Amino acid sequence: MKKSLLMIHTGNGKGKTTAALGLAFRAVGHGFKVSVIQFIKGGRRSGEIETAARLSDLIDFNVTGRGFTWQSDDLEKDAALARKAWETAKEKIRSGRYRLVILDEMTYLFKYGMLDEDEVIEFLADRPESVHIVITGRSASEKLCAAADLVTEMNAVKHPFASGISAQKGIEY
Amino acid sequence: MKKSLLMIHTGNGKGKTTAALGLAFRAVGHGFKVSVIQFIKGGRRSGEIETAARLSDLIDFNVTGRGFTWQSDDLEKDAALARKAWETAKEKIRSGRYRLVILDEMTYLFKYGMLDEDEVIEFLADRPESVHIVITGRSASEKLCAAADLVTEMNAVKHPFASGISAQKGIEY
Repeated sequence: MKKSLLMIHTGNGKGKTTAALGLAFRAVGHGFKVSVIQFIKGGRRSGEIETAARLSDLIDFNVTGRGFTWQSDDLEKDAALARKAWETAKEKIRSGRYRLVILDEMTYLFKYGMLDEDEVIEFLADRPESVHIVITGRSASEKLCAAADLVTEMNAVKHPFASGISAQKGIEY
Repeated sequence: MKKSLLMIHTGNGKGKTTAALGLAFRAVGHGFKVSVIQFIKGGRRSGEIETAARLSDLIDFNVTGRGFTWQSDDLEKDAALARKAWETAKEKIRSGRYRLVILDEMTYLFKYGMLDEDEVIEFLADRPESVHIVITGRSASEKLCAAADLVTEMNAVKHPFASGISAQKGIEY
């Protein structure tokens, strides 16, 4: 039995977004179309954007955020952006054009009450059969995990920031 | 402070190799060269090989294995291949040409006694300063984790194979 999956990458460790990008890396190799919605990250030119541009026949990459909400100067603006980004994501999912849709950092939008988790879960349950979904972000709720086919928790056993090593190009972004 | 990292992706969950591929996806976007050595996987055409071929100006992809050892008909042959693959990996690391070298599924070679873990740890400690390393595979030893800068454990909270959904193109390979 094969079916499209709703996958969650959660936990406090590295690798949640990175593993989603790895799935895109694989999917593209099979000629599958992939759409990425980065709900939170914004601004900084990232390695993933550049590589996606090289694979733009198959990867549709959308940066819809403007940085982390806990550094935000205007939460209302963030919430409006989040709702708009979700409308865009829904269109892309509904179209059935993409075999994989990555909803990056989406869990934070639930946590901050910017999106209605129940509505998202319901929408995803009714998506076209061929569309795999990955949702990334810390603290995925029990309800979201219950709705998912696959939940992986990335746990930091040892983290270099703790030893004073900073985020760096090609690793963290 | 920035320094190149020795990273371990371990645990019983999905995402160990996938997150390593995600790092390659990022690194390439910054114009960094990446070398991948897949010690175990062999045979099956994978999505990652195809995508790496599209990015071959920056990604050097090596499949050195011939499938999982627990299905092997000739462990001696596997061990010889593993030793040869490690020699290749050493050359690539030593050359300093690659900003990131992925040693995929390497932990199994230690577990099956096909490679000497101490020798590998010692070699990696003396590598050129600019070279990030990722080692993937279950059951990374305490010694290996102690030598690493970053250890992430990917834990399966919920896994679709358990519900009878098979491995599929673009997700597992």
